[in-house]
This record gives sequence, C-alpha cells and structure tokens, in this order.
Amino acid sequence: MDIDRKIRYGMVGGGPGAFIGEVHRMAAALDGKMKLVAGAFSSKPEKSRKMGKKLHLKKNRVYDSYEVMAEKEASLPADERIDAVSITTPNHMHYPVAKAFIEAGIHVICDKPMTNTIEEAEELCRLVDKHNVVFALTHNYTGYPMVKEAKKMVADGKLGTLRKVVVEYPQGWLSDTGDDEIWRLDPEKAGISSAVGDIGTHAENLVAYITGLHLKELYADIHSFGEGRELEDDASMLVHYEDGLRGILYVSQISVGDENDLNIRLYGDKAALEWYQEDPNYLHVKYPDGPEEIYKRGNPYLSKAAEAGNRIPPGHPEGFIEAFANIYSNVADVIGARLGGREPEALSLDFPTVQDGARGVHFIHKAIESGKNRSWVDMSYEPPVSS
Amino acid sequence: MDIDRKIRYGMVGGGPGAFIGEVHRMAAALDGKMKLVAGAFSSKPEKSRKMGKKLHLKKNRVYDSYEVMAEKEASLPADERIDAVSITTPNHMHYPVAKAFIEAGIHVICDKPMTNTIEEAEELCRLVDKHNVVFALTHNYTGYPMVKEAKKMVADGKLGTLRKVVVEYPQGWLSDTGDDEIWRLDPEKAGISSAVGDIGTHAENLVAYITGLHLKELYADIHSFGEGRELEDDASMLVHYEDGLRGILYVSQISVGDENDLNIRLYGDKAALEWYQEDPNYLHVKYPDGPEEIYKRGNPYLSKAAEAGNRIPPGHPEGFIEAFANIYSNVADVIGARLGGREPEALSLDFPTVQDGARGVHFIHKAIESGKNRSWVDMSYEPPVSS
Amino acid sequence: MDIDRKIRYGMVGGGPGAFIGEVHRMAAALDGKMKLVAGAFSSKPEKSRKMGKKLHLKKNRVYDSYEVMAEKEASLPADERIDAVSITTPNHMHYPVAKAFIEAGIHVICDKPMTNTIEEAEELCRLVDKHNVVFALTHNYTGYPMVKEAKKMVADGKLGTLRKVVVEYPQGWLSDTGDDEIWRLDPEKAGISSAVGDIGTHAENLVAYITGLHLKELYADIHSFGEGRELEDDASMLVHYEDGLRGILYVSQISVGDENDLNIRLYGDKAALEWYQEDPNYLHVKYPDGPEEIYKRGNPYLSKAAEAGNRIPPGHPEGFIEAFANIYSNVADVIGARLGGREPEALSLDFPTVQDGARGVHFIHKAIESGKNRSWVDMSYEPPVSS
Amino acid sequence: MDIDRKIRYGMVGGGPGAFIGEVHRMAAALDGKMKLVAGAFSSKPEKSRKMGKKLHLKKNRVYDSYEVMAEKEASLPADERIDAVSITTPNHMHYPVAKAFIEAGIHVICDKPMTNTIEEAEELCRLVDKHNVVFALTHNYTGYPMVKEAKKMVADGKLGTLRKVVVEYPQGWLSDTGDDEIWRLDPEKAGISSAVGDIGTHAENLVAYITGLHLKELYADIHSFGEGRELEDDASMLVHYEDGLRGILYVSQISVGDENDLNIRLYGDKAALEWYQEDPNYLHVKYPDGPEEIYKRGNPYLSKAAEAGNRIPPGHPEGFIEAFANIYSNVADVIGARLGGREPEALSLDFPTVQDGARGVHFIHKAIESGKNRSWVDMSYEPPVSS
Repeated sequence: MDIDRKIRYGMVGGGPGAFIGEVHRMAAALDGKMKLVAGAFSSKPEKSRKMGKKLHLKKNRVYDSYEVMAEKEASLPADERIDAVSITTPNHMHYPVAKAFIEAGIHVICDKPMTNTIEEAEELCRLVDKHNVVFALTHNYTGYPMVKEAKKMVADGKLGTLRKVVVEYPQGWLSDTGDDEIWRLDPEKAGISSAVGDIGTHAENLVAYITGLHLKELYADIHSFGEGRELEDDASMLVHYEDGLRGILYVSQISVGDENDLNIRLYGDKAALEWYQEDPNYLHVKYPDGPEEIYKRGNPYLSKAAEAGNRIPPGHPEGFIEAFANIYSNVADVIGARLGGREPEALSLDFPTVQDGARGVHFIHKAIESGKNRSWVDMSYEPPVSS
Repeated sequence: MDIDRKIRYGMVGGGPGAFIGEVHRMAAALDGKMKLVAGAFSSKPEKSRKMGKKLHLKKNRVYDSYEVMAEKEASLPADERIDAVSITTPNHMHYPVAKAFIEAGIHVICDKPMTNTIEEAEELCRLVDKHNVVFALTHNYTGYPMVKEAKKMVADGKLGTLRKVVVEYPQGWLSDTGDDEIWRLDPEKAGISSAVGDIGTHAENLVAYITGLHLKELYADIHSFGEGRELEDDASMLVHYEDGLRGILYVSQISVGDENDLNIRLYGDKAALEWYQEDPNYLHVKYPDGPEEIYKRGNPYLSKAAEAGNRIPPGHPEGFIEAFANIYSNVADVIGARLGGREPEALSLDFPTVQDGARGVHFIHKAIESGKNRSWVDMSYEPPVSS
Repeated sequence: MDIDRKIRYGMVGGGPGAFIGEVHRMAAALDGKMKLVAGAFSSKPEKSRKMGKKLHLKKNRVYDSYEVMAEKEASLPADERIDAVSITTPNHMHYPVAKAFIEAGIHVICDKPMTNTIEEAEELCRLVDKHNVVFALTHNYTGYPMVKEAKKMVADGKLGTLRKVVVEYPQGWLSDTGDDEIWRLDPEKAGISSAVGDIGTHAENLVAYITGLHLKELYADIHSFGEGRELEDDASMLVHYEDGLRGILYVSQISVGDENDLNIRLYGDKAALEWYQEDPNYLHVKYPDGPEEIYKRGNPYLSKAAEAGNRIPPGHPEGFIEAFANIYSNVADVIGARLGGREPEALSLDFPTVQDGARGVHFIHKAIESGKNRSWVDMSYEPPVSS
Repeated sequence: MDIDRKIRYGMVGGGPGAFIGEVHRMAAALDGKMKLVAGAFSSKPEKSRKMGKKLHLKKNRVYDSYEVMAEKEASLPADERIDAVSITTPNHMHYPVAKAFIEAGIHVICDKPMTNTIEEAEELCRLVDKHNVVFALTHNYTGYPMVKEAKKMVADGKLGTLRKVVVEYPQGWLSDTGDDEIWRLDPEKAGISSAVGDIGTHAENLVAYITGLHLKELYADIHSFGEGRELEDDASMLVHYEDGLRGILYVSQISVGDENDLNIRLYGDKAALEWYQEDPNYLHVKYPDGPEEIYKRGNPYLSKAAEAGNRIPPGHPEGFIEAFANIYSNVADVIGARLGGREPEALSLDFPTVQDGARGVHFIHKAIESGKNRSWVDMSYEPPVSS
C-alpha cells in the first residue's frame, strides 16, 4: 500500500449470527491493511447497533440503514470517511446497496452472486465504470495460492491444449428437508436459484479463473430433492467451453455428509491438474509418462502469483480465511495505490471484477433456463464495459 | 465346491501379450478351484500353440480355432472334457464363441461387453436358458468385498431413500492421439463404442449392482478427442434411475494421468457412501450428523457377503485380481454344485449374469444414440428370459 | 471480552523478515479483540522504526529497545498504555524481555521455548505469580479445535487406559548443511538445543495437553547431521509417562521434504486417535471392533472445547493462523475479564501457562543430557508456584 | 522357467484355519508356475488328510508327518517327486522341517522367522550350502514392486547419502488382553519374542533390502501390555546402521485399530522416500526444492526390477498376495533354471535367502537382549557361508 494509514471500510450486512459477514471482517483484519470503522449491519437498527458495539465502533458510525450510511459517510471529511464498503447482505440487497455506495464514490467489495437479475448486474458494470470505483466480488476460492499456481500452469502451457474439466461443488447442508426457513431457499431474497446461485457461480468462476476460458453452451439437469422447495438444491451440467474444452459442472446442497467440497480436475493433452478446496495447500499434477507431482503452498519453486498469496511457510496450513483475505489484501493495495496517486502493482489486480460478477449472474439465469427447458443454452455473453 | 476335483476349464483368447486373458487365468488359479486344461488362445494357430506350451497344456488340448475346440471338447468323455470356457477375445468374437460353447453344453465365463449388438445379447439370453448352462460376465468390480458391503448397506436402508449418484471411470491411456492401432478403437472389433463399451458398462453395472436400480432415462454428451477416431473416447451422462435416483455417469479414456479410477459416490437422505477402485479395501460412509466412517475389508463387523469375498486379514491389501477371482470362485462353486447334483449356496450366485450382459449392451447402444442425437433416451428395458 | 474496547498490545521482536512475529500479529488481529499499538521490533532501532511505520503505528509508540518500551509504556495513563506484550524475539531474549514487562505489570504472550535455562524459567514462574499477570506461551498447536477434541475424548475415557503414544515432528528445512547462518543453530541465541528446543517442546506439550500426563523417564538419541553444527538437528526419544503410557517422541530438522509434519497417534486399550497438523481439521479415531471414524472441525457433534476454537463452518478449512489466534483470543478474553473485574469463563483459560513453559525448558535440558550421556533420565519435575 | 512343466511342491503346515498356509498356496498358484502335489498339513494326521482332500491331492501324497513326507518324497522317481517344499508351520518347527527336506535335496520356501535360535539358523545356512538347495524365506514385503523401485532409487543414489530411517509395523490384533490362546504368545512355539519375531523381522529386513545396509547397534524398549504375557507385544528401537544411517524401528501388536501398517520413511541428503504397505502401489519421493512425486506401480517409467514384479496395468491395484507370489515366482524360475541346467536370470534371484533368515534371528535375539538389559547391543554379525 502506498499510504501511511490503513484503508477505512464500512460494512452493510454481517449482523449477529451471519457467517459470511464475520468472514469478511476476519479477512479484512488479517493483514492489518484495513480497518472497520462504520456499518449498517442489519435491516433492524437494534441489531445493527448491537453489532457495532460488539465491534467497538464509534456510535455515530453505526447506521440504521445503508441509505443513511452511504449519505452520511460520503459527507464526512476525506480523512475520516470510509474508503470502501463491504456488502454481505442476502443476494437481493447487493444491487441497491452497491449502487448507493458506487454513486457516493465509495469503493465496493461485494459478496456473490452479484445481483439477482442480469439487468442489475449490467447496470453495476456501467456504474462502476462511470464512477470509476474499485469493485471486487468475493469469489474467494480464487484467492487460494494453489489456485493461482494452477492458473499460471495453464497459462504457461504446462497442460497443453485443454480438453476436459470436471468441477464439483457438493454440499450436504440442505439434505434435511425439514429446515427450510433460510433465505437461500426463498426466491424473494435468493433470486431464481439456490444451488447454482450460491455455489455454482463459484464453480463457474473457478474454471474461468484457472483456464481463462468462457462457456459456449451448457445443458443443465436441475432438481429439488427437498420437498416443497421452489429453488433447485442440485444441478448437474454438461459444459462446453471455448477452444474445445468440455466437461461437467456439478453442484449440490443435498449431498449428505459433504461439507464444502469444491474441487476441480482439469485435463490437457500434456498433463492434468487437480485441486481440492478442503485440502487447499496442495496442487496435484499428473502426466501420461511420469510420476504424479504434488505442489505445496509456500515453496520457492512456485510462481510469483502463488507466492504473493502466501503468508506462512510450507506445512503450516493456510485455509479459507487466508484465501478470502487475499482478495481483501489486493483490493486494499489497489485502493491504497489510488489514494497514493500511483499505479497499482500488477499482482494486486488479481481479484474478481464487476464483469466477472455479471458473467456469474448470466450463468445462473442461463443454467436455470436450460434446466427448465431441458435444452442446451447458448452461453455467448459479453458484459458491458468489459475490463 | 461339492465334487472332489477341480473344475476343468478352457480359454478362447488370451494369447501372448493379452492383458485380460492373463487376468482371467490368475483369477481362476487363485483359489485352486479351477484348472486350465484346454485353449484356443489366438486366431493365429501358431500363437495359440505357443501360449499352450507356455501354460504347460497337453498339445492335443490346444486348438487352432474355437470352433474346433468346442466340437472336440464336447466329444471328450465326461471325466476329461472341460466343464467351462473363458472367453477373453476382442468384443466382436464374444457372441459366436459363446454361442458355440453354450450349444455344446459347456458353461461360459465371458468378458464384457457381452456382445456388439443387442440382438446377439438377447440371443445369448435365450441360448443360456435353452441349454441350461451357467453364464457369468466378468464385471469384476462387483467382486470387491467392499462393493458387496455397499450393496448390503443400501439394501438394509442405511442410506435411506437414494437421491444422487456420481459414478466415474476416467482413464488416460488413450490421451495420446498418435497410437491408435488398438482394437478398442476399431469399430469392426469394438462395436459402436470405445469408452462407453469398455468402461461405461462397468460404471453402469456397478450402480445397478449396489443400488438394485435400473436406468429410466439418460442424456449422453460423447466426444472423440483423439484425431481421426471413429469411436468416442469420452462420455459424460446425465442419468435418471428408477425411484427418483439421479446423477452423473462419466467415463473417459483421455483423462491424462488417470489410471483406472472407477469410483462411486451414492447419496441417500440418511447417509452417503463412497468407494474408490484404486483404494478398494475401504468403504467410506458419511452422515449428516456424525463422524465419517471408514469400513475396512476383512473385519468381523462386515456383512456375510463381504466376508465371503474376503481371503486374508485386514490391512493385507487385496486388489484387482482377488476381486476378479471372486467371480471365478463363485462360478466354480455353482458349477461344482451342479456337477454334484446339489443346489448352490445363495452367496455363490453373486456374479453378473447373461441378463446383466444384455442390459450392458442395451446401455451402450442407447448412450451412443443419445450422444449422436443430442437428446434424452428412454432406458426402459427388460432382457429376455430374465433371471 | 467484558470491556468496550480492544485489548491494546505491543510487540518485542517481529521485525522485517521475521516469520513468527508476523504470525503473532495476524493471530492477534483475526478476531478483532486486540489492537497493536506499540513495539520494539528489532534490536536495531532503524529496523524497529521501519516496521512501526509499515504497521501504521504512532511514532512515539515505536521504541528503540524493549527496556525503554517497558518503562515508557508503564508510565502512560491507564487508558493509553498497552495491556499486554507479545515477545517474538530469538530464544535468549525471552527471559529478560518477559521479566521487564512482568515487573511493569504488563501481561505477557511469549513465544517458545520460554527461556534458555531452567533457572530463568522458574524465575518467570515466580515473577508471574508475584506480579499477578496473565502469561501465555504460544504452544499454538494446542489451539487447533481437533486437538481440543482429542483432549476431551481422552478425558472422557473414550480411549480407555492409555498405552502407547507416537508423536513426531519432522521438518526438512535444515537438511541442507550449507546454510547455517540462522540463529536456531547458534547456541548463544538458541540455547543448548536446536531441534528439541524448537519443535521437541511442541511435541512434548502436545502429548501433555491431550493426555494430561507428564513424562516419568526418557532416553534420547540425538545427532547433528549438518556438518559443523554444535546443536542437534535430529532427536529420537523413548518416552515413559505416568500411568503406564509409553512410546516414541521424534523430532527432526533434516527430514528432507517434510515441511511441518507434527502428528500424534495415541492408543488406549479401547480406542486410538490420530491427528496430523498438516491436515488439522480432521481427527481420526480407530476401534478394535468397528469402522474408523473421522471427526471433522465445525460440526455440532463435537465438544464445547472444539466448538469454542472454531470460526467457520465445516469444510471451510481453518489452519495454522486460526489455531494460533485461538491462544490470542483466549488470552484477550482473560485480560478483558480482569480489566472488567470479572472471572474469566472456564474455556478461555485454555492456553499454555508459564508452568507449561518451565516444563518445556526442563524437557529440553533433560533430553539433551540424556542424549549426551546415552542414559535414561528421570523426568520428575514440578515447576514452582504451579497453577 | 526353462522346463516344460510346472514346479511340483509340497507343503508342511497350512492345515485348516491357518491363514499363512493359504497365502502360500495362493501365492504359488497365481502365476501357474507351481503345482501343489503333496503335503503334511498338520501334526494331526486327520487334519492333514482333510486338507489334502479339500485341495484335491492324491491320497498317497498326503502324509501324517513331515518326516515321513521328506523320506517318501525323496524316494519317488525324479519325474514325480516334489521339487520344493513350503514350510508354513509355527516357528519352532521351521528348523527340523527345513533340515529334513534340505537333507533330502529338496528346495525350501520357509516362513519367517527362520528359526527360534541363532544356532539353528546358522546350521541351516551350512546345510543349504552343503546340499546346494535353493532356500527362500518369505519376507514377502520385499516382493512389492514399489519396494523394489525404492531399492533401485537408493542404489542409484537418488536419495544421496542416507541419514535417517523410520520404519514402523504397528498392528492392533493383540490389543485385547483376554484372548491369549494363540501360539505367537507361547514361548514354546514362538521362541523368545512375539512382536519382534513376527513383525520386527519384516521391518528389519525391509530396511536392509531397500538400503543394502546392516545394523551396527541397537537399543530396544520392549514391553508387554497384555496382562500375564511372557512375550513382548510392543517394541520401540533406536537403530544405528552402517554408513551413518540412524533412526527408529517400531513394532506393536497392541496398537488398537491398526491393521497391518508396515511403512518406511527413508531420508537422504538429496531426497526422501515413503512407502506404506496398506497402500502399496505407490511410492512417494520428496525433495528439498521441488514438488513431491508419487511413483505408481505398473508404469513404464519404473525400473526393470519393479516391472519384473508387476502383473497388471497401473490403477488395477495389486496387493499382498501378488507381492507374496513374486517370491514364489522368482523361486520357481530359479528352480526351473536349475532343473533345465541353466543359469537363472539375475532378476529372479531377488528373494530373501537363508542368510537373510539368520540375520533376522540374530536381530530378534539381540533386540530382546537389549530390551531386557536396558542397554545398547552391538549388532555386528555375519551369517555363515554368506551368499
């Protein structure tokens, strides 16, 4: 970072009991580059204040609504107001909150999926461009050093021509059909999709990040195993990418006993790689004619991208929070560079953008469309104002 | 076995350099229940004789052709002639060879896929019934004790209602596109399919064996990555089974670095199980609300079916040949019971039948049809003379 | 925490390039309970100031020496001065620094091994008692939730009578004998031991934490594989504990390719457990008569102790920093309770104490003595003012 | 093999219910090189005959005692009598049985440990030399292809100068102290040791096989956890080898939940290797400065020694029986060469010899001596008539 202070940020969402808000705060805190100074943590003012107190914030920086927060913060002196906001609300609020802060000239870190409609997503693309703010989407799995190494290997041609990808994200937390009070199953909040929106977008983004390729067409078999559910809790997709890559993308929320088992297997004509989110410090590379290799986080033989995302020596496992923090760290560096009037370093630009977010929203809508129509869908898509 | 001698068998196919013929011989030899006494090991008489000599067979029991062998063996006295024949030729020869021996009243152990056409498969069903011979198809993976344990768990309701299955069989041995002289890629010998026929049938059979369920409909995405190949070397399928089970069946011969990675993950509403052919002595069971369990071959807490397929104590790994031998062992017991005029024990009937073979051939044809038409296919099917 | 502010802490050591200082800062930051406000980061004032600037500290809180820091901080008003200090210097400085801050009434978090001599260690025990400060030693591996679960299982009798323990801590980072400029190999700084002091103490502490048992006698085979090294880089010990537990404790710094492979296998007469630091979210439990179980971090079926050390849902891997942070979090809670005039909650007292530190130092000295004399040593020991 | 028939062998021991006799028979049968034609399967004639009938042997080749068998077989015509005998009795009978057959000029395959006393072991060395028979000891773990690959890597200098070895063989089958009717705990049959004799010798032999090094000195901590047991069920040893290699050798029969977990980790100054008997198709190699490698059985990149021990393609797991069969296969080839009047091929000489057996017996006695005296023992030893 190029300035002699921490980046000040506020948070919308992340009230008491919200898992992902807590993760954002830990991720922001980990490297000491950012400091939480404001928040509208809940749509219920009392809950927001309770959280503000727990976080030791000044009372006048804890707001009853995001609208007031955006307005008030924007009106504070430059050496006091927040540089950025983290949006960790349920999906349907991402758009209005992001819009409010972007228009206030405040940088945004937003949870995924970015919005509930393609129109909203594209509008955010245009707003980010117009107001020239930094916008990061927390596809946090791309923050893992060994995912960065995988991307580098593909870019270097180590796998040869890509042929086949199998990307999976099975979870079991919705296998019990009795407990459906959660917002991810409520179309009003979650949008048109549960499994595809929540975890399918991560899988799609992971492939795009590692391979640099986009989907060309897709066939989705979607299903709700939970009785009475409006949204799908399982989706199996046949996927065709640019340049001849094809394969399977599979997500599930009813895979009993699976916890958060995102994984990818990617095969080229020269080599293949495998990465497992639940064992994230290792990257497996397989060859047709030599022993399998296991690359391990933290070692000097890895690429600069992997090294940049690394904090501690090999064998001292890093996990989910550290990967999440890598997005925050890069965003902090980029905001710091802007504040310092300098160009950010290339490696710090390594985080998902508003255009990635628009692609994700487009993916959700097309996958659900395919599933409902039992037909292939054309995935050609270019988000506005591409970065 | 109920008779005081070994079962005598002959072999068609399995000449010099043939991997699977050697496996059949080791599987038959392992338990000392069967004895190889005759053979037509190659369509080239010289090769057949060379192999006969290597195997220390009597010269007059090594034949130049399967036709001569079937005829001559059938004409030998009852205390000399073969009780059974093992067919380990390329696919296109399974039918005529099997037919010849069945009609000679000789029991058959046949490699898979059973035939190249559905008509041939159904004809074998009828012939087996008519001539009342024992017919076993070497879907050898069902011979693994922990697969038998999996079947038992499902039957006992331990998984609850089955919801989702993911069965994979990736291999990498055809990833190199330069070396296509092999018969599995030649439609004249392999039939209409390479990957689906060779390994897809194993995957389909494994699900059927464990779950007891049959396919209802199927959508296949098939592809040849190898340049100039007529037959597919990769297939990804969306599969819908009876009783609401659905999932993914995926096979590949171009998954660089994968060796023989057949595996299955099966999810019910109460529990899930996982089994990996490359680590076959273990069966993983996962629950929504308790620790994962690893069941290990050879332990007294396993079912009788698993125990019956077991040879040595836990921790002394058994492998592919032992699983293969379990099919031979059961077939030997059933033939022995017939020769001894007794009913076979129930557990010895645990091997794939001619009807399983017909289902496999039907599966191949429908999967390829689906892939070519880019459409779902109805999988309703009942082989003739069902067992 | 019982007060409406973060705990203020300072750091001694942890200058540019120091791995462990950075770990302490991340661990303290993660949960938002502590705030770094002061430091003497290096014995070289320039380096200290550089680090202070990088950390955005106020200039007047960055000190040229720990002595000045202790004196100045103690003289600040109560609402400004540090509540606690983190000591992350090389070993030989732990004692004087800790002494200075304890005598200034400032709570201490100290890296291990606690001191270089037994006398120093015992003096710290007495000082902590006399000045009534909180003192925590960062045997961070006891911070892992699944280690806490292991301790609970043993306490609950799930393993029955303990019989055998195998605890290992192999590393390979000193296998190259050419690069011996590091302080851990310098007796002036590291004390009388390299491997035993740096990692053997972790292994010893891990067994004591999980089992609640202390060593009765020990036989150490120590060796320096690195040419010209004065201190041992490898030690294999036969260990006899109280109550009949016996086994092996093995540490190495020349185990090429091993990264940080601390692990423990503990066998009782009813069950056994296994835990691997490099895969820390899982605890394996084995039985004589049932399937192996894998307990997984974050699940509701775990004990309260494991739950207390947990941040995010199962399947989202937590790692080294999170475990380290659990010590900081507990210390912050205990200091907060003191500041708030309340009794700390029982679970927050779960961190290594100054007496644990004295035991560790005693262990180092006796192990080296055994190794040099090729004889068993009596390990009976009771640190002063036992907690 | 150089002759046009199978090698004929007989068996002493291996009656009903004997695990290891069955393993020997399967191992001998697997490759079709040997044929069981005679036996004295039990010291109880009735049991022997029962087993002979089960194995379909001719009645006149099933004997009431090994003495009669040795005498009668030796008197049969050359084209009928056994070429070799397999000895699978309890330990105390190995010596007299082996002696009887060696003196009858019959080749011997003997289970381990070779004898109960060093004198007997050395006498066998001399007898083997005098009567010029082939003698193989079934240290079957050296039959695994990946163990052969490990040996080759060490010989090729891939690991550099060897420094450290950790070899373990924990089992849990004797953890229950109530069931001590078995011969391995009876000094009359098992000799002076249980754990060291039964599995320690395998561990010792494995290190010697892979490294080519012998023990120089040893310190053993031995213990009986089972109440009332005369023989040890657990032993932890500090081991010093020739050429500066040192480490730990650990065996246990009370490690609850462990099945047959023989494993070795071997560290040089350039690289390290790891091999696990329960996952035997893989060999891990680690480096200080590059990714870990996993070598996999059956691949063309392996050495000729590994290839020679291989039967089926990669990914089709081979196990315990196949490794055991590799010893039988080599012995059959060597006997065949002798019968054919030719020199055996170098690779077929790869099996444990009578001298290896003498070393094992010496190891047992010295380890128990060390354990009883709580002192280091000198391990210098050269068996007679070294091969």
